[in-house]
Amino acid sequence: MAENEIYVGKKPVMNYVLAVVTQFNQGAKEVHIKARGKAISKAVDVAEIVRNRFVSDAKVKEITIGTEEVQGENGTTKVSAIDIVLAK
Amino acid sequence: MAENEIYVGKKPVMNYVLAVVTQFNQGAKEVHIKARGKAISKAVDVAEIVRNRFVSDAKVKEITIGTEEVQGENGTTKVSAIDIVLAK
Repeated sequence: MAENEIYVGKKPVMNYVLAVVTQFNQGAKEVHIKARGKAISKAVDVAEIVRNRFVSDAKVKEITIGTEEVQGENGTTKVSAIDIVLAK
Repeated sequence: MAENEIYVGKKPVMNYVLAVVTQFNQGAKEVHIKARGKAISKAVDVAEIVRNRFVSDAKVKEITIGTEEVQGENGTTKVSAIDIVLAK
């Protein structure tokens, strides 16, 4: 995993919030919050909770969406993805 | 509901895709795809399916996220929201 990138998955939302806050506390100027499929909603929650409760000078710098191909048991399927960039 | 705004909720994803495509076919230059909470992932799916399969000249013009207060039975709760603007 690249530095300053947090992949949001099935863990509780506060795990990812803590990971993002830790990145900022360690001096990161920006952090990418990434997710695919149903985890996209949770990625937005993470960004909002970080901004509103923990790192109030962090702004949403950019949000990009796209479609990625995932290798499954029965070939590839397409899944939506999001990349939210929080920056101080 | 304002013109050119599609609120994504609990219906199947293709219902909302059709609603967005219809707006463009009726001459809309941009369409807002909005959602809250767990429907946010579906809103991203809607935007991606519209762009990739139906309205290939539509671009993601802007994506904004925020937090809204929802009136529930036990007072207000906060929920994340997204607004994806597709434009031709």
